[in-house]
Amino acid sequence: MAEPKELEGGICAPEGFKAGGVRAGIKAGASKRDLALVYSENPCSSAAVFTSNRVQAANIIVTREHLEKSGGRIRALMANSGNANACTGEAGLAAARRMAALGAEKLALRPEECAVASTGVIGVPLPVDRIEAAMDELAASLRSDGTGALAALEAIMTTDTRKKQGALQITLPSGHDIRIGAMTKGSGMIHPNMATMICVITTDAAISAPMLDRALRRAVGRSFNRLTVDGDMSTNDIALIMAGGAAGNQPIETEGDAYELFAASLETLCVKLARAMARDGEGASRLLTVIVEGAPSEDAAAILARAVAGSSLVKAACFGADANWGRVLCALGYAGIPFDPAAVEVSFKSAAGSIPLCRQGMALPFSEEEAKRILSEEEIRILVRLGTGTGTAAAWGCDLTCEYVKINGDYRS
Amino acid sequence: MAEPKELEGGICAPEGFKAGGVRAGIKAGASKRDLALVYSENPCSSAAVFTSNRVQAANIIVTREHLEKSGGRIRALMANSGNANACTGEAGLAAARRMAALGAEKLALRPEECAVASTGVIGVPLPVDRIEAAMDELAASLRSDGTGALAALEAIMTTDTRKKQGALQITLPSGHDIRIGAMTKGSGMIHPNMATMICVITTDAAISAPMLDRALRRAVGRSFNRLTVDGDMSTNDIALIMAGGAAGNQPIETEGDAYELFAASLETLCVKLARAMARDGEGASRLLTVIVEGAPSEDAAAILARAVAGSSLVKAACFGADANWGRVLCALGYAGIPFDPAAVEVSFKSAAGSIPLCRQGMALPFSEEEAKRILSEEEIRILVRLGTGTGTAAAWGCDLTCEYVKINGDYRS
Repeated sequence: MAEPKELEGGICAPEGFKAGGVRAGIKAGASKRDLALVYSENPCSSAAVFTSNRVQAANIIVTREHLEKSGGRIRALMANSGNANACTGEAGLAAARRMAALGAEKLALRPEECAVASTGVIGVPLPVDRIEAAMDELAASLRSDGTGALAALEAIMTTDTRKKQGALQITLPSGHDIRIGAMTKGSGMIHPNMATMICVITTDAAISAPMLDRALRRAVGRSFNRLTVDGDMSTNDIALIMAGGAAGNQPIETEGDAYELFAASLETLCVKLARAMARDGEGASRLLTVIVEGAPSEDAAAILARAVAGSSLVKAACFGADANWGRVLCALGYAGIPFDPAAVEVSFKSAAGSIPLCRQGMALPFSEEEAKRILSEEEIRILVRLGTGTGTAAAWGCDLTCEYVKINGDYRS
Repeated sequence: MAEPKELEGGICAPEGFKAGGVRAGIKAGASKRDLALVYSENPCSSAAVFTSNRVQAANIIVTREHLEKSGGRIRALMANSGNANACTGEAGLAAARRMAALGAEKLALRPEECAVASTGVIGVPLPVDRIEAAMDELAASLRSDGTGALAALEAIMTTDTRKKQGALQITLPSGHDIRIGAMTKGSGMIHPNMATMICVITTDAAISAPMLDRALRRAVGRSFNRLTVDGDMSTNDIALIMAGGAAGNQPIETEGDAYELFAASLETLCVKLARAMARDGEGASRLLTVIVEGAPSEDAAAILARAVAGSSLVKAACFGADANWGRVLCALGYAGIPFDPAAVEVSFKSAAGSIPLCRQGMALPFSEEEAKRILSEEEIRILVRLGTGTGTAAAWGCDLTCEYVKINGDYRS
């Protein structure tokens, strides 16, 4: 089977999708885009995963309703930045429903075929009148090429410093080429009183809603759910996938080679974007990848890897290019997963080399100078071997810097 | 019942205890004390709680053994700073046993009557020969007054910037005065490759080991276990209590007024020291107290309060004197405890006043200027009311500052 081919064009790389973005004036005083629309010309299968935070934004509640009511047939998304529409009560729910209805009306869809996503300040009423006033311009901005994808992406960014999108093409066993495109925003798990991850995925593969749901959960479980910037989980996180079927393949409705290839490619794309989000973590100067091998299971390995990637002390050590393996052991120890501390191996790697630091749970002699050189790279990998099973997983994070404290301490001042 | 009376003298305030501290040269190049001894002239009941980290330092393993082997009769403690004796394998275990034996020998006790505690760098062999060489001087340093307590306290401090000790006197229903003294070290949950909390408590009350154990677990559960500086849990945490009985009261062997008074006073003292540890958190500029009311249970309230006190975003907001209540709701939402977001009230308080920010899960209008003034105090209280039950708990933490990042990023550089 051929490797997936990388494409330009983000969410507009798959056939049959259009996207656009305009400035509606939701971000006060900003001259930037803040309202996006994504549209499938064809009926879609769709699936989504939502934040598990008990405090859920109005747009999350409404999109969940629409996904259910449409029977997994969502084919458009209205999204805004500058306002999270969270902690806004009944008025917020009404505003989210109105926002979906505006998009649906413009595209001649039923309201439940349109999802909504919001990101920005918590607790401020969503100015839905400004959204209404911008609808003509928004619909006119729809493009089926990369410029449309980019306009939509810009409209959902908040303090993101990098544009995070990607697209892949793969050839199914039947010979059909299918494409998957994705964009994400988010640079802290939750932001300066802001809320957070939006991931929009499009594909022209024909695939049933249940199989799409399954592939999405697997991909998110191995990508965005293994990402930690500051340990906080937003009220607004959403990942939405829409499959329009323009590729003309026999619909994927069961497990098998076609499903496996689709699911693996979706996972590859989500991992790429998760890594980009970690690298774009608030104030981050380094991308941190933690790989745990030899755990009792993949889930156990993921929990251990996340504990290490999420430890403030490990993150601060990476900022300081300090080969502080004791903190890695300590974080493993409080993750709640059984392992034998006397069997642990830890090494640090980067483009500049590799340095083993701990074997059988004890220190190895090492050159501080060499460690410093290795840890001064922009990407650091921490490798942990436990020797108690075959479970392996990676988690991604970033270093903890003064810049993070400044961004999150000074935002509203 | 009379309020507990505060005393000077820390762990030497109770009758029958001596303490001392010297410089053994474990902290390389430092001229500070690094070896402490605490001794009860009378046989003791004793109890201890230990870190639940799966990676446990050698001294933790040995003290746990000694507590069991002696049947809860530990009456001396050897403690050092500058070396955690963690991740040191079999040699580390032998060193911890030797350290206990040296103390026991000097005091004519059985080895299992002596506990050991270590704090400092992880993964470096403990130089037990230096401890042996310092034993005469250490024994000679024992004093039964506050100077001895202070010398012992100084010898277990690492990057602590404040001396954290206290003592209380209470009158039992029988008319006997009893005293409880305590000292702690620790200013991050774990330190720059260092490991962390040591709490030593002495009392001249007569109380059985099982009741002492019960009182200690309750006090620690409501104090040190509700403390979060950076979310990391050390390999070396220990809280040890020794009860020598010199007060001459009828031994407390069952529940009742005497036990209740003792346990409540012990809790008061531990809470005082936990607050002092939060205030002395690495790089901290403010003490943060989070009070959750109206939770389903006290345990649920404690989990919620800890989630808020431990949120990097809440901590950074406190650093910036930013009344960012959205982050408080968000942290409550991911704590894993059920509650109704639409019933939540949040207010911030300090010596400069009180400001309600959220009612029924929604924003209240407030003056940014007044909020800034209130949050610029050294102590900030965040009050959360859930309205779903009667569980109440407090948790303590500190703000997240650039100084924290510098301390933990630059330590080994």
